[in-house]
Amino acid sequence: MAINKLTITLFLLISLAVFHCLAFRVEVQEFEPPQQEGQEGHGGGSGEGWDEEATKNPYHFGRWSFKNFFQSQEGFVKMLPKFTKRSSTLFRGIENYRFFFQEMQPNTFLVPHHLDADYVFLVVQGKGVIGFVTDTENESFQITKGDVVRVPSSVTHFFANTNGTVPLRLAKIAVPANVPGHFQVFFPSHSGFHQSYFTGFSKDVLTASFNVPEELLGRLIRRPQQQVGQGIIRRVSPDQIKELTEHAISPSNNHKNKKDKHKDKDRSTFGSPFNLLTQDAIYSNDFGRYHEAHPKKFSQLQDLDIAVGWVNMTQGSLFLPQYNSETTFVTFVENGCARYEMASPYTFQGEQQQPWFGPGQEEEVEEEMSGQVHKIVSRVCKGEVFILPAGHPFAILSQDENFVAVGFGIHASNSTRTFLAGQDNMLSNINTVATRLSFGLGSKMAEKLFTSQNYSHFAPTTPRHQFPEKPKPSFQSIFNLAGF
Amino acid sequence: MAINKLTITLFLLISLAVFHCLAFRVEVQEFEPPQQEGQEGHGGGSGEGWDEEATKNPYHFGRWSFKNFFQSQEGFVKMLPKFTKRSSTLFRGIENYRFFFQEMQPNTFLVPHHLDADYVFLVVQGKGVIGFVTDTENESFQITKGDVVRVPSSVTHFFANTNGTVPLRLAKIAVPANVPGHFQVFFPSHSGFHQSYFTGFSKDVLTASFNVPEELLGRLIRRPQQQVGQGIIRRVSPDQIKELTEHAISPSNNHKNKKDKHKDKDRSTFGSPFNLLTQDAIYSNDFGRYHEAHPKKFSQLQDLDIAVGWVNMTQGSLFLPQYNSETTFVTFVENGCARYEMASPYTFQGEQQQPWFGPGQEEEVEEEMSGQVHKIVSRVCKGEVFILPAGHPFAILSQDENFVAVGFGIHASNSTRTFLAGQDNMLSNINTVATRLSFGLGSKMAEKLFTSQNYSHFAPTTPRHQFPEKPKPSFQSIFNLAGF
Amino acid sequence: MAINKLTITLFLLISLAVFHCLAFRVEVQEFEPPQQEGQEGHGGGSGEGWDEEATKNPYHFGRWSFKNFFQSQEGFVKMLPKFTKRSSTLFRGIENYRFFFQEMQPNTFLVPHHLDADYVFLVVQGKGVIGFVTDTENESFQITKGDVVRVPSSVTHFFANTNGTVPLRLAKIAVPANVPGHFQVFFPSHSGFHQSYFTGFSKDVLTASFNVPEELLGRLIRRPQQQVGQGIIRRVSPDQIKELTEHAISPSNNHKNKKDKHKDKDRSTFGSPFNLLTQDAIYSNDFGRYHEAHPKKFSQLQDLDIAVGWVNMTQGSLFLPQYNSETTFVTFVENGCARYEMASPYTFQGEQQQPWFGPGQEEEVEEEMSGQVHKIVSRVCKGEVFILPAGHPFAILSQDENFVAVGFGIHASNSTRTFLAGQDNMLSNINTVATRLSFGLGSKMAEKLFTSQNYSHFAPTTPRHQFPEKPKPSFQSIFNLAGF
Repeated sequence: MAINKLTITLFLLISLAVFHCLAFRVEVQEFEPPQQEGQEGHGGGSGEGWDEEATKNPYHFGRWSFKNFFQSQEGFVKMLPKFTKRSSTLFRGIENYRFFFQEMQPNTFLVPHHLDADYVFLVVQGKGVIGFVTDTENESFQITKGDVVRVPSSVTHFFANTNGTVPLRLAKIAVPANVPGHFQVFFPSHSGFHQSYFTGFSKDVLTASFNVPEELLGRLIRRPQQQVGQGIIRRVSPDQIKELTEHAISPSNNHKNKKDKHKDKDRSTFGSPFNLLTQDAIYSNDFGRYHEAHPKKFSQLQDLDIAVGWVNMTQGSLFLPQYNSETTFVTFVENGCARYEMASPYTFQGEQQQPWFGPGQEEEVEEEMSGQVHKIVSRVCKGEVFILPAGHPFAILSQDENFVAVGFGIHASNSTRTFLAGQDNMLSNINTVATRLSFGLGSKMAEKLFTSQNYSHFAPTTPRHQFPEKPKPSFQSIFNLAGF
Repeated sequence: MAINKLTITLFLLISLAVFHCLAFRVEVQEFEPPQQEGQEGHGGGSGEGWDEEATKNPYHFGRWSFKNFFQSQEGFVKMLPKFTKRSSTLFRGIENYRFFFQEMQPNTFLVPHHLDADYVFLVVQGKGVIGFVTDTENESFQITKGDVVRVPSSVTHFFANTNGTVPLRLAKIAVPANVPGHFQVFFPSHSGFHQSYFTGFSKDVLTASFNVPEELLGRLIRRPQQQVGQGIIRRVSPDQIKELTEHAISPSNNHKNKKDKHKDKDRSTFGSPFNLLTQDAIYSNDFGRYHEAHPKKFSQLQDLDIAVGWVNMTQGSLFLPQYNSETTFVTFVENGCARYEMASPYTFQGEQQQPWFGPGQEEEVEEEMSGQVHKIVSRVCKGEVFILPAGHPFAILSQDENFVAVGFGIHASNSTRTFLAGQDNMLSNINTVATRLSFGLGSKMAEKLFTSQNYSHFAPTTPRHQFPEKPKPSFQSIFNLAGF
Repeated sequence: MAINKLTITLFLLISLAVFHCLAFRVEVQEFEPPQQEGQEGHGGGSGEGWDEEATKNPYHFGRWSFKNFFQSQEGFVKMLPKFTKRSSTLFRGIENYRFFFQEMQPNTFLVPHHLDADYVFLVVQGKGVIGFVTDTENESFQITKGDVVRVPSSVTHFFANTNGTVPLRLAKIAVPANVPGHFQVFFPSHSGFHQSYFTGFSKDVLTASFNVPEELLGRLIRRPQQQVGQGIIRRVSPDQIKELTEHAISPSNNHKNKKDKHKDKDRSTFGSPFNLLTQDAIYSNDFGRYHEAHPKKFSQLQDLDIAVGWVNMTQGSLFLPQYNSETTFVTFVENGCARYEMASPYTFQGEQQQPWFGPGQEEEVEEEMSGQVHKIVSRVCKGEVFILPAGHPFAILSQDENFVAVGFGIHASNSTRTFLAGQDNMLSNINTVATRLSFGLGSKMAEKLFTSQNYSHFAPTTPRHQFPEKPKPSFQSIFNLAGF
């Protein structure tokens, strides 16, 4: 009896030992609570009978993936985790890039700060001002929806939402300067939320540096009485807004200034903002519009090798199947919902149960090329992010309303885009014999298949030659078709 | 008694716990079955009495190291594992490069596909055609032994072996675009071996994209009846070969086309093939010949910073001791066998028994500079790969027959080659006082030692001043000499 | 009873199992023996009542951090460990750079060798000669204090201290060519300390390569009798010194040679040495002087993207608070002691007790941006190294005597420097409304705080408006001030 009891105790102890070992590796962070993800995944709103795969989609970051850097009633800054925390292999090529997002309520001010990272942002909504401060000048620019701004590493800058009604929303991508994939924010001033970087210095150094009485230094490193509880985003008065706006260069007088002051050199450090939406759309028809700023054209984007894109699709339209040759797009949904579909030959962690691969460790990528294609499908909605890796064919199908998304293309300078359907699609250019050998299609059939779509880039989802007699296909038939 | 029995059970359980812990780390993959490696290592064929070191040579990849990506009677594509799987430190500098090899039987066709990787290939045997397909054109090139071709990431292309008797053999090196050190292949069409990437899309998207009846889509995503069992390499008829060849640009009309059509810009995307063997050899004498294409000369190789080399040595010749300053050569043996010898001050994993360092984890490099030099020696034969890292002195001694090897030099643009023997060897240029201080040699002795070799680059292994009275040295004496 | 005894045994066994698991991860190397670090940390010599924080400062490398590569009575070469061994995240951006240091006694010679790394060195003391040997020539340069020399990867070179009284001291930074963060040294000749790389070759290859009798080869791969016990640094006679110096190009005849021989192209490989101290100081006043060579100006530094700096401060001076925008400076103290203070929002390993994170593994960086600022403070003295990462505000306060430090700035080409105090400080340029919103300061107060310091870049630590009535602040008050 005693022995039996002992045996049980021992089992428990041994389990403890084993568990202890496991505990060192089970550090997988769940960025998205499972129940929430389910909610996001099974987008009931589409009503199109689309049954999403149960497989976790590593390329889709729901709202729950974001971490709040700062949040108050006046606005927030939130950030996606380092991509390699989601998958240390799939995203290793973009691990040094971080996506973050900033929203400021009307009539607010974000205090001066710098990052140990270069970054590019796109104004997705609203109007405001960005002010750059250097040891030689203070230069502010008015920014508005569609503006793209490059902020170099360690340049001190502040923001203001100068509009009285609309929030100012900025999508941002950072390239850290010190620690790949990580950056921090440095504030010269103090608040209820953060410490001034002057708290890093001793009183000796500060008094000698500023050559002022000790008492005055308190303003640098202690938070002023009236700001207790204030965060980094602060409400400002109309007068202050006016003053901030007055000194800001607007796009219209930008060119004039350049000619007058011959300051081009100085300004090129920050790169004047330019507006993406006033550029000609590179693809445009009744169903959608796509604008893109390429690093070869805009010097501000050149050294970071980042392209910026903006897609706007009418309800029920299709951004035709395509792939980018070198660039990986980090795409943020600004309005509406869409279903995006992507084909991937990669096997990823979500499919294999390997709970011991913690963040920061490289999991094994399946070396065998299986010849199998994985269906990556998600419904993506406002505030969410999805990734479109290089070479992966994808399509975007706008759903309930107009769909607006913006994207940052990483490694963009040599990248091209290849469409797989529509006018000028790549498949229609495969020569006759190769088409027959590959698809088993004669030239007539091939022509029918590859040249029936008369639209380019964007197309309607309701086919123009109807099959009125056919009901919506059952799920079963879709799977038969796709999975075979 | 019961207690004794229990104790044994407990020991077993505890062992299990310990083993469980260990199991997390013991993930070392053995790419080469030990018995096979032994076979390769102790090359009995040379008959020169060379006794190879028992030490595992991390720089030598035998045939068993390759993984088959695809294999059928019509040909194969096989690939070396990521170099860092062999040694995560020694090869970290080249971890983003992958070597692979393709062989197609006479009169075969490899279906259109793209990679999420840039790559460069060299035709080591045979004749054929490569066809590039974009959304604006379809351009084919005739390729032949010695041709070097750059294939940009995500460009759809197909191959044909247009020769009726000789296999088409291509050595390739890839620079992945998404996941460092990993790439995948994407096929628009379906086969018995692989899925079309269109299987990643739903029927809704496909019908809307192609604007065709659902029935026709089956040809895209289902394999045609007549192709059941067919792989990605397919036998083709003489007529099809003829048609494929006719449209292909041959090197001779290549220049004409350029002048006529002024298409230089378009074509530069793919980079027209150029032939390495029609370039002047940079080293050449009766014992061997070395051709090299440098990225500074060939724009196709420039952004990948890869050089391509081709060495051809007569039987029993020596490629004199030398080192490359910046480039690491990944070298593939196309014909014959050779012994290559290399000096390395690095201590590597194979020497230390550390079974818990799994792939993907950085093992410790011995930090202490021991002053010790390791002998890296292997007999390398047709179909095998060996690595020549930057700065490491090496020599190649061709054995049974003509030795032919091709190499891809990584980080090549600023690299130079330094010979340690032969005319213009570096050692002969050390000034008198430095020579005396370093080698303890007077100027006469130094002259004798460093200037007796009248050949450059390649030399015979039978010394021209014989010692007929001396027998072949015993193994013992070699070791005394070398190990001391 | 027996069961109790058994239970104890079992506990022991299970502990063993658990311990076994732990043992796989407890590989943290202690580079600085704790007792020594304490000694360094609490620099009693300053006498200024500064109480250093107990926190381990990851940015400070004391003398004990260095590893000896070689040491004898004639001199030494010592090296810092790979930075990522200290912190695999904080230093991942500079993990491919290695700092090392070389000291040669008067009248000594360091035998020819090459590294599988590019490197840049700065002569911090003494006079000597560096000789470069290639397969086409042997070129020597005279070097003196302040000279900067670029040594390309794999170029064979030797050193001589040609001065009869002063040691030759060189601070070096290497960029490895093969294994990121690791390099080795290759010697053509043999010594008591190291093996010639010719020991890596078999007798067959060596006799065929040099075409000499076997007996002569012994001089290459065996150490000569008279050099038993000799290391890589050797004492040389005045005659030999004379001979080595005679053939060396001195800075004065450097230009002449260029014109005469039109050899510019060849020489650009090594980059002629240039003197940092004869360049105009970029900052200079009574309290200090700062020289910097920028990669945009000096082609030798361009491809490595390294800047070289030299600061010289009088006793009791302050290098005003500032930060670099993109570059991380690896700084070596050549004379005196200083206190350096730095503000960091990063949380690092030293603060969290995570003994299982061994070297080479990426520890977790705290993802949450806490708003907290860490005080990084250390007293740094001759022979020690400290790191100044991009974007991090820092100040340097020279203490007992003149303070001289040299720095290598990594990722330097686009970096700028921003001062936070002194004339032209950045804070004084924040506009009125932004200053009020951030610091809660009216324009008068702001002016007083940000413009009272009349000196630029360097300032005295004794404020010019004294508070004679106030005693030195107690430690307590400093902490209240700073920690709040």
